[in-house]
Amino acid sequence: MRLLPRATLNKVKALLFDTFGTIVDWRGSIIAEGAVWGKARGMTIDWARFADRWREGYQPAMVSVRNGEIPWTKLDGLNRMLLDELLEEFGIHGLTELEKQNWNRVWHRLRPWPDSIAGLTRLKKDFIIAPLSNGNVSLLADMAKNAGLPWDLILSAELARRYKPDREVYLSAVELLSLTPDEVMMVAAHRGDLDAARAAGLHTAFIHRPDEYGPAGQADTAKPVAFDIVANDTLDLATKLGT
Amino acid sequence: MRLLPRATLNKVKALLFDTFGTIVDWRGSIIAEGAVWGKARGMTIDWARFADRWREGYQPAMVSVRNGEIPWTKLDGLNRMLLDELLEEFGIHGLTELEKQNWNRVWHRLRPWPDSIAGLTRLKKDFIIAPLSNGNVSLLADMAKNAGLPWDLILSAELARRYKPDREVYLSAVELLSLTPDEVMMVAAHRGDLDAARAAGLHTAFIHRPDEYGPAGQADTAKPVAFDIVANDTLDLATKLGT
Repeated sequence: MRLLPRATLNKVKALLFDTFGTIVDWRGSIIAEGAVWGKARGMTIDWARFADRWREGYQPAMVSVRNGEIPWTKLDGLNRMLLDELLEEFGIHGLTELEKQNWNRVWHRLRPWPDSIAGLTRLKKDFIIAPLSNGNVSLLADMAKNAGLPWDLILSAELARRYKPDREVYLSAVELLSLTPDEVMMVAAHRGDLDAARAAGLHTAFIHRPDEYGPAGQADTAKPVAFDIVANDTLDLATKLGT
Repeated sequence: MRLLPRATLNKVKALLFDTFGTIVDWRGSIIAEGAVWGKARGMTIDWARFADRWREGYQPAMVSVRNGEIPWTKLDGLNRMLLDELLEEFGIHGLTELEKQNWNRVWHRLRPWPDSIAGLTRLKKDFIIAPLSNGNVSLLADMAKNAGLPWDLILSAELARRYKPDREVYLSAVELLSLTPDEVMMVAAHRGDLDAARAAGLHTAFIHRPDEYGPAGQADTAKPVAFDIVANDTLDLATKLGT
């Protein structure tokens, strides 16, 4: 039985989740893979900085697509352009094409936060659950298969051939669900994503992920009143949605 | 370990499944729901004929979309137009709008054939598995959630805004998987679907579903050499793909 906190939320039938940072720990996963990979090759690399630099390139690359400076490109393609620059920057030379492809697919192998699978499994009982990420469809499908994320379906910015926070991304997901915006809730650890979802008419839930950017990083925070729900993790979200 | 039957099939990474008739028993499911529904209302309806008539309307309705006679319409919308005619034809009067909507959603509640879940679960270990159906995304997501179909992701003709056997449907699914056509195999109980998939460069597997159209119906058959694989059901397909 659902005990929803507010009457306006009773209509919610589907939950859409940001993934990078909200459901999976991109930074910790890249550091962990890098450490193993580098050790086997006797390389000393600051993998935390490597992860942070990769992520720093992500927003400008997507802005280039959003502005029309470069044509529609899957996130895998943007990540690969950034990786080629990163390998130069960190002095990592001599990789084969297959090795580069494997490194780029680290984004397909990101590990969930400790609560994510248990929280999503609870939420799935009462709601349709799907990612709505800037990751492309195949990236998100691989991530789910690898990590055991129990999505009902994969939704992605790729299906609108736009990147969040473009309005069309949220509205195309709502349309594919055959729902209205107020029957859908966007869940993210990033205020900008939720502000855009709310502007498109969706409900919003913020999840605190204080470790997303590491000990020195500045993760988003939100006051309890800033969104329909503000939760500490996906299990807390499930409790606050009465599942 | 995979023991694929032919070297050319070693490249296959993803299996796409037709659903209506191939994975779920649309006819038996509609008859079963109709029988319960009619009995509660003291109505005597030939539910087998009702199911067959509904399905007969499906092809012409899709052809109207494929020809451009009517604009893109989700299968739920086509099914509803057909349902409204059927209710007249069978003399079923006085339904509320909610009752009609519930009847139309019988397509979201179709039951799998007895082997489907076990077969798909085996295949999922070695392949990415997804439906590629003319059913819209939300129909297929509801069907999976209701029946427990273990898809990795939901693919649909809706994502190309075309209906099978239009070539774009197969190619859009391949593109979303970030694969090439020869890395993908279409699985169906219908020769026309597989012929179109093969023409688009996909591998093909035929599954016999002799009961799809009932005892008097004419289900498609195929000789063992007609497609890359010809199987008796999804478990036989898993065996023939070495999973």
